[in-house]
Amino acid sequence: MNASAAKSVTLYEVGPRDGLQNEKQAVPPEVKIEYINRLARTGLRFIEATSFVKPGAIPQLQDAAEVMSGIERPDSVNFVALVPNQRGMQAAIDAGLRTIAVFTAASDAFTQKNINCTVAESLARFADVFALAREHSIRVRAYVSTVVECPYAGRIDPGAVLQVSQKLLDMGAYEISLGETIGVAVPDDIARLLDALLSDIPADKLAGHYHDTRGTALANVMRSLEYGLRTFDASSAGLGGCPYAPGAAGNVATEDLVYALERSGYETGVNLVALAEASRYILENMQRASVSRVYATIPQQN
Amino acid sequence: MNASAAKSVTLYEVGPRDGLQNEKQAVPPEVKIEYINRLARTGLRFIEATSFVKPGAIPQLQDAAEVMSGIERPDSVNFVALVPNQRGMQAAIDAGLRTIAVFTAASDAFTQKNINCTVAESLARFADVFALAREHSIRVRAYVSTVVECPYAGRIDPGAVLQVSQKLLDMGAYEISLGETIGVAVPDDIARLLDALLSDIPADKLAGHYHDTRGTALANVMRSLEYGLRTFDASSAGLGGCPYAPGAAGNVATEDLVYALERSGYETGVNLVALAEASRYILENMQRASVSRVYATIPQQN
Repeated sequence: MNASAAKSVTLYEVGPRDGLQNEKQAVPPEVKIEYINRLARTGLRFIEATSFVKPGAIPQLQDAAEVMSGIERPDSVNFVALVPNQRGMQAAIDAGLRTIAVFTAASDAFTQKNINCTVAESLARFADVFALAREHSIRVRAYVSTVVECPYAGRIDPGAVLQVSQKLLDMGAYEISLGETIGVAVPDDIARLLDALLSDIPADKLAGHYHDTRGTALANVMRSLEYGLRTFDASSAGLGGCPYAPGAAGNVATEDLVYALERSGYETGVNLVALAEASRYILENMQRASVSRVYATIPQQN
Repeated sequence: MNASAAKSVTLYEVGPRDGLQNEKQAVPPEVKIEYINRLARTGLRFIEATSFVKPGAIPQLQDAAEVMSGIERPDSVNFVALVPNQRGMQAAIDAGLRTIAVFTAASDAFTQKNINCTVAESLARFADVFALAREHSIRVRAYVSTVVECPYAGRIDPGAVLQVSQKLLDMGAYEISLGETIGVAVPDDIARLLDALLSDIPADKLAGHYHDTRGTALANVMRSLEYGLRTFDASSAGLGGCPYAPGAAGNVATEDLVYALERSGYETGVNLVALAEASRYILENMQRASVSRVYATIPQQN
């Protein structure tokens, strides 16, 4: 990797999926489509657009097929959908996706509550998904949630994160997204985690997915950069959160990350003004305020 | 310094002064008094309570003498007031203050706009203040604003910050508060600044005063810790900002700093629940929302 490549960072936009999924109000599919189309014109190279969940499971995401068939699909953007099982994988194939994501955690207590199985059972469930992915040359990204703490089981041993991550890479995942789900971590937590993971996993197989519930997400990204991570998940305008936990916030705002990274000498390829306009579109439709600091500093375009 | 002392951080609360001064709405003196009294019961050891400005200069702070005579003054807390000149210093002496603060910048363009003189002239103006301080055994803290960028002059040479800081220490200041006034800095900016300053000034003479306009303040504190800084200015609930600059935010929220520092193994001595209740009091009186993430996670006490 040359010096220039080393100073480039990939942002993986999760606003349309992780963001909208965790907002209380439903957003009509045509609004999602326009939001995604606008995001796709900002320079972002990865957009997680939706999730092919079981009908009835997550009301906010029932329109996955409609959204995927409605959006523009420029070659410059990798569109991704979350896939829970073989049925969802078939829907993703039908939608022409080239990258999908699977979701598990480092804590059995968390997977039991969220996907109704142990971590090991979730991996077994993914075997069919990975088989279909190989068959169709589809790339699989894997989310590992609760990498620092679980809301039900407390502190998580970095060794548990390493174990599940290594298994997912062995199964064929191209990247592990490390989910600091509840937003409690400080940079030292991230350092301890990465010290454990990087002994066995190269940094370019890892992405940081840090929720900003206690305002520490950007500091955690900054520490991760020192460890060689160069991919981070982010949510435009900081969309997201969890309706059930007081103060729970979404992923770090994409705007805040673009600003801090570019100012630190990393290229993101993202146009901040265009990004803020995409955010403005969805915020106005939801009548919701931004939680991104940088968003508030960008004058509205007309 | 033993290991335990090295892991202790001093928080210098600026909400009642820097915070309220930069809020649009005026707060009645009895509300300020109750807010400060509540802050004084949280474990904070430094509270900047007000500013003895020229009558008419800052409407929000005309009640300085009334506030200082109205608050409880427990021995555990150092109350500080900003003092612009000899007249203000006499008022601070009359109010029985043992610590005062003076305010200048690293940029002539900034001091010209804010205090109507060059940086050198501001120091000359402080000579009488320092003389009175020596005479009355009063400690003087010195703010140096625009340590990274000036809104009028752009990037600031760290050498200019070193020069004015060194002069203030020579005049008798016990501490320099490094004001990242407009909130543009990322950790690398702070690192470059501290690399320059620490060649001549010990870390225990420096405090970080970072505004959170672009969400980078906490990350900047974290990097400063690596350089040995152990005093940080913060504003309860993130009060403050600047009515004239779009999106300009106050100092990093004290709640967010307490959380991140304690989780990182530093003792602050501050009770987070008591702090959130002090913030709740002032926010309810101002009918203003908190910008602190951690505040939002603390359930209201009854």
